Amino acid sequence: MENRITSIFNIKYPIISGGMVWCSGWRLAAAVSNAGGLGLIGSGSMTPDILREHIRKCKDATDKPFGVNVPIFFRHTQETMDVILEEKVPIVFTSAGHPILWTAKLHDAGIKVAHVIANTKYAIKCEEAGVDAIVAEGFEAGGHNGKEETGTMVLIPQIRKEISIPLIAAGGIATGAGMLAAFALGAEGVQMGTRFALSQESSASNEFKTLCTQLHEGDTMLALKKITPARLVKNELYKEIEKAENRGATAEELQEIMGKGRARKGMFEGDLSNGELEIGQITSLINDIPTVESIIKNMITEYNAQLKKLYPM
Amino acid sequence: MENRITSIFNIKYPIISGGMVWCSGWRLAAAVSNAGGLGLIGSGSMTPDILREHIRKCKDATDKPFGVNVPIFFRHTQETMDVILEEKVPIVFTSAGHPILWTAKLHDAGIKVAHVIANTKYAIKCEEAGVDAIVAEGFEAGGHNGKEETGTMVLIPQIRKEISIPLIAAGGIATGAGMLAAFALGAEGVQMGTRFALSQESSASNEFKTLCTQLHEGDTMLALKKITPARLVKNELYKEIEKAENRGATAEELQEIMGKGRARKGMFEGDLSNGELEIGQITSLINDIPTVESIIKNMITEYNAQLKKLYPM
Repeated sequence: MENRITSIFNIKYPIISGGMVWCSGWRLAAAVSNAGGLGLIGSGSMTPDILREHIRKCKDATDKPFGVNVPIFFRHTQETMDVILEEKVPIVFTSAGHPILWTAKLHDAGIKVAHVIANTKYAIKCEEAGVDAIVAEGFEAGGHNGKEETGTMVLIPQIRKEISIPLIAAGGIATGAGMLAAFALGAEGVQMGTRFALSQESSASNEFKTLCTQLHEGDTMLALKKITPARLVKNELYKEIEKAENRGATAEELQEIMGKGRARKGMFEGDLSNGELEIGQITSLINDIPTVESIIKNMITEYNAQLKKLYPM
Repeated sequence: MENRITSIFNIKYPIISGGMVWCSGWRLAAAVSNAGGLGLIGSGSMTPDILREHIRKCKDATDKPFGVNVPIFFRHTQETMDVILEEKVPIVFTSAGHPILWTAKLHDAGIKVAHVIANTKYAIKCEEAGVDAIVAEGFEAGGHNGKEETGTMVLIPQIRKEISIPLIAAGGIATGAGMLAAFALGAEGVQMGTRFALSQESSASNEFKTLCTQLHEGDTMLALKKITPARLVKNELYKEIEKAENRGATAEELQEIMGKGRARKGMFEGDLSNGELEIGQITSLINDIPTVESIIKNMITEYNAQLKKLYPM
C-alpha cells in the first residue's frame, strides 16, 4: 500500500505520531519511525538546546525519516527553527499559527512541511502557503483544540471537499478501525497523539499514563474556551477551572488559575491533582501501555480485518 | 447487502431517518421508507391525535415498514404509546429516558424496539432491557446531546467494544463516505437527522432549511449545558444564551430565556432570529435540499465508490 502520504514522507505506513508536549521525545519518535510510521519530536516543551539533544539522539536511534513539530506562536521559534535547519531534520510539522510564516523557508532547505489545522479556513491558507500535507484535527483530540469544535467525522470530509493536497486525519483515532474510518472519509494518513502518549516509549510520567488507561467516556472535557480551548482530564485542577467557568470567570481569572508550568507538572512530573493533563477522548478506549511496535502492528492487522468486513450495497 | 439492521427492520438499506421534532412528519417518514430506508415519525412535537393522523397518512403513503420515535420523558408518553399500539406501528425508537420503561411492553405487542443513547452506560442498560438495536449518537448531532460530549469517531468503537447487539451510528453522518466510516468503526446502520431535515419532504420551514444550507463550520454549537445540552444554530437567540452562559447564568435563568415553543417558532414557523434552531454539525457539508429518493440513491453510490478506493496495508 502506497499513497501520497507514504510517498511524501518516505515511510511504510501512513501513521504519524503527534508532536506532543512532555510525551514526544526522541525515544517515541525513533520508535514510531522504526516501526514504519513517522515519528515527530514535540518541540513545544523543549528549549532549543534540549531539542538539539533529542534530534541527535533520534538520529542515532533510527535511520528512517523523522520530524519535529513546532507550535509557531511559542517563544523562541526562530532558535528552534535554527536548530532544525542546522541538524538537517527532513520533516517539520508546524501548528498553532499561520502556515505562511515558515513554509517557504523550510522548503528552501529541502524540508517537507505539514501544518496542523482545525477548520477549512486554515486548510485553504495551508494550500496557498504550499505545504506538502495538512493535518486536520477534530474536537476529540487532546490538548489545544479548534474554536469551532468540529468533530473528526465532520471535519475530514469538509476539508477533503475544499482542498486537494494530501490530508492527514487526527482526533479520536487510536486503532486500525479508526484509521479505516478516516480513510473512508477521505484522509490519506492518520496522526495519533493519545495512543502514542500511552506507549512504553512516551516520555510522559507513569502516573499520567496509568491514570489515562483508567479513564471513561466523559472523563476529558474541552475547557478554557475563553483563553484557548484545550481538552483536559477532569482532575482537581479541571474542577477548579470548571467551577470558575460556571460562575462566568474572565480569561484573566482563568489564566491566573492556570499559572505556569501546569502541563509539565501533570504530564511529566506526575502531579495528577494540580497538573494540566492533556489527552484525547479516545483514551476511554485504551486500557494498556504497549510498545510502539505492537501498537502499529496491531493497527495494521485491525485495519485489514475491518476492511475485509466491509461489503458493497 | 444484508445485515442485522436490514433484517430486524425488514428494509433494503440500513439507513434510518431520525425522528426529529418539526421535521419528521409522515411525508418524510414515508419517503425514506419508500426509498429503501427506515422512516421514523418524530412524535416529540406531536399531540397523540396529531401523531395518529401522521401514522395513518404514512400507512397510506407507503407499504414499507416505518416507525415512530418517542422521547419517553415527554408529557403524554402513555397516550402516545396507546396510539402506536392501536395503530399497530411495527417499529418504535425510544429516546431520552430509560430503555427498561417501554421495551417489554412494546415487544409484547410484536413491535421492534431501538433505543437512542450517547454513552456506554446506557448502551449496557439497553442490552439488559432487551432492545433490538441501539442508536449511538455522537457530539456532532443536532438538538439534544449527551453530557459526555463524545464524538462519533470515539463513541461508535467504544459502544461496539462493550455491547454485542446491533448498533446504529448517528451524529455527523450525511453521506455515503460517512456511512462507510461508521461501518468501519463497527456500526451496522446509520441514523441521519440533519441530511433528512434538509430534504424536500421534511416538514421544517423553508426559511430554516435554506439557512442551514448556508451554514459553515462553527455555525452550530453545543449550548444549554446547565439544562440539557443541545446543538443549536448560532442565531440571535443563541447569542443571548451564550452571553448569559459567559456571565455564569444559572439553569433557571437559561430556562427563562428559552421560554416555551422556541423550537416550533424557529424550525416550523421560520422565525430564524427568535426560534431555537436544532441542526447537526454536518450541516456545513450540505448545500442543497434534494428529494429523499436522491439523497439515498447518492449515498449508496458514494458508499460503493469510497469502498472501492480502500485498499489493504
